[in-house]
Amino acid sequence: MEQLLDTYTCDAALIIDSSEQNMDLYYLTRFFAPDSFAALFTATQSAVIVSDLEYERARKEAQVDTVLRQNELLKNETHKHDKISGQIKAVICALEQFDVKTILVPAAFPIAYADILRERGYVLIVAKGTLAPERLHKTDSELSYIQRAVTETETVVKHALAMIASADIQDEKLYLDGELLTSERVKSFIMGALIERGYLPLYTIVASGEQGCDPHNQGSGPLYANTPIIMDVFPRSLSSFYFADMTRTIVRGTPDPYVIKMFDAVLNAQDAALNMIRDGVSARSVHQAVCDVFEREGFRTGTIDGIVQGFIHSTGHGVGLEIHEHPRIASIDDTLHEGHVVTVEPGLYYRGYGGIRLEDLVVVTQNGCTNLNTLPKQLVIVD
Amino acid sequence: MEQLLDTYTCDAALIIDSSEQNMDLYYLTRFFAPDSFAALFTATQSAVIVSDLEYERARKEAQVDTVLRQNELLKNETHKHDKISGQIKAVICALEQFDVKTILVPAAFPIAYADILRERGYVLIVAKGTLAPERLHKTDSELSYIQRAVTETETVVKHALAMIASADIQDEKLYLDGELLTSERVKSFIMGALIERGYLPLYTIVASGEQGCDPHNQGSGPLYANTPIIMDVFPRSLSSFYFADMTRTIVRGTPDPYVIKMFDAVLNAQDAALNMIRDGVSARSVHQAVCDVFEREGFRTGTIDGIVQGFIHSTGHGVGLEIHEHPRIASIDDTLHEGHVVTVEPGLYYRGYGGIRLEDLVVVTQNGCTNLNTLPKQLVIVD
Repeated sequence: MEQLLDTYTCDAALIIDSSEQNMDLYYLTRFFAPDSFAALFTATQSAVIVSDLEYERARKEAQVDTVLRQNELLKNETHKHDKISGQIKAVICALEQFDVKTILVPAAFPIAYADILRERGYVLIVAKGTLAPERLHKTDSELSYIQRAVTETETVVKHALAMIASADIQDEKLYLDGELLTSERVKSFIMGALIERGYLPLYTIVASGEQGCDPHNQGSGPLYANTPIIMDVFPRSLSSFYFADMTRTIVRGTPDPYVIKMFDAVLNAQDAALNMIRDGVSARSVHQAVCDVFEREGFRTGTIDGIVQGFIHSTGHGVGLEIHEHPRIASIDDTLHEGHVVTVEPGLYYRGYGGIRLEDLVVVTQNGCTNLNTLPKQLVIVD
Repeated sequence: MEQLLDTYTCDAALIIDSSEQNMDLYYLTRFFAPDSFAALFTATQSAVIVSDLEYERARKEAQVDTVLRQNELLKNETHKHDKISGQIKAVICALEQFDVKTILVPAAFPIAYADILRERGYVLIVAKGTLAPERLHKTDSELSYIQRAVTETETVVKHALAMIASADIQDEKLYLDGELLTSERVKSFIMGALIERGYLPLYTIVASGEQGCDPHNQGSGPLYANTPIIMDVFPRSLSSFYFADMTRTIVRGTPDPYVIKMFDAVLNAQDAALNMIRDGVSARSVHQAVCDVFEREGFRTGTIDGIVQGFIHSTGHGVGLEIHEHPRIASIDDTLHEGHVVTVEPGLYYRGYGGIRLEDLVVVTQNGCTNLNTLPKQLVIVD
């Protein structure tokens, strides 16, 4: 934090948020709380300001130098008649106590609090990126949390794929043990199995046919034969809070030849990206390599028949305490570095054929990358 | 929205956030998306601005007049050389298109975007409360979602309580089927059973003994006999996205006489609040009534032996699409109205005795309130 404050010439950094939602805040305090609290970081000191409700827990759990109690700060405060909330009043008391005038805040800092602070003469500097840049570089213990999440997820996905592989086909629909196999049924299995293992999938995608054309359609109703089924699973550990994120696409039955071509192109695009990723590579060039493969193999991206189709998302994103975090592998200026953990997930989406997406999670290394996934990628699955 | 824009004399309201995190945004667009998107509301029109990834899904799901594609807006934009993100560039294009100059934004609107807009001459007015005040007043269908969530939660909690009731006691610890009964084991049962029913508990509290003294300690390790066990369960429906929220406190074995006194006081305090709640009542007076019961029955709140103890939180909070939403029943200026859904959850926390909390969810009515919970409150449970 000292270096960051130096770069921005600020006295302190300030975050006011829930650490259930703001992972910089969680990372910097290691205090997981559902309600909003404030954290203040000077070059030499760190403090959180919490309610009575959280005070004793924060004293035990928060990895900061000082835990301040909001009500305690307000006891001696001289802003009694200010028509502002107790929380920001307490923050102002703490700013005075720590002699802070110039404050580094995250891009998402609430405008209401920003206006109150600026009206009172504080200078707010908005950080360009995360306030915890060290989050991007995963430590060995973080890598082991993520690897464990990936391994558990693969075990569950393997079972879910086996459900589809062993399904019977009747009237283009899938049946398992005599009952219709639906998106809901497979998702319910995945969620239950992950919960049992200590992982929580906020939601899960099992989408077949046209539903698969919208990458964030979670899928509902019957699963169909002879058409791609996208399975995208991204649970969070209930103990470490780290995520896994993986996608497989399969067909039960006989795929359209064009779908086979799509699948091969996605596989080639993923390989192209995986072969490029290494310490120092530009994110834009990796994304471009994926686009080039699709272009070369004749898969167009853009508005087709009035609908946005093709490769309609970026190549990947960081994964850690957030499911989507920095760095991004997209058409932007960003560089991958050793210790970054990123998804590599090209996809193609065409109406009438469905969606194909393949997603692995990799750790960037000095000379390449290490794929944390081992589950094979196979379009047509059989029992 | 028209009325709100009128009150604040604004041309439009603007939210830029993820609708997975921002429930005003979800409520106003009915488009559930994990990544940040923009929504613009004039007096007569509503629009969302989304990425290619979400465009087709938004066209099907978003309940707004217009779905704008970010990349489409950027094609014709005149801000090409601005060093700002594509998202805010696209928003500026839309503001020009809708001829918006004065913008109503939520209190949590990101400072980075606010600064960019203000630098370009836009006037930003920060809303005092929610941009969707109608969210507080639950419709019949919302009430039925919440009632269903409560009923399913009670079924699961009843089973979890039965696990504890039928546990054997050895060396002050609880055992079930010959194995140690831990917080983790009961939580795992609760989570699994809720998932099966289509409800997702982000986390669950099953905390015994001293752990129960910190209201947000989720509990870990062995459950102890003869000491309070707090069970606080607040899952969200995976289909409707509405929450339930309930707490019971029980003892397996023989409680300390002081714990019995605490339990009775909490029950009396809850009754006092339930008897006061009706359309038009002040939130502060309900909270004060709870404090008065504790005061009268001799339960002090404050720093005792250097630790914050007693009734250390507020009496209740709104529940709906968020687990904590308006109104609050606390020492603040707020009024409860017909159709509000609020928790009533007094609690007492004393070191050496543990925590007692009882929480029901009620709907405020013209002349009182309707308790959505029916599960009895009993301190000592037996098989």
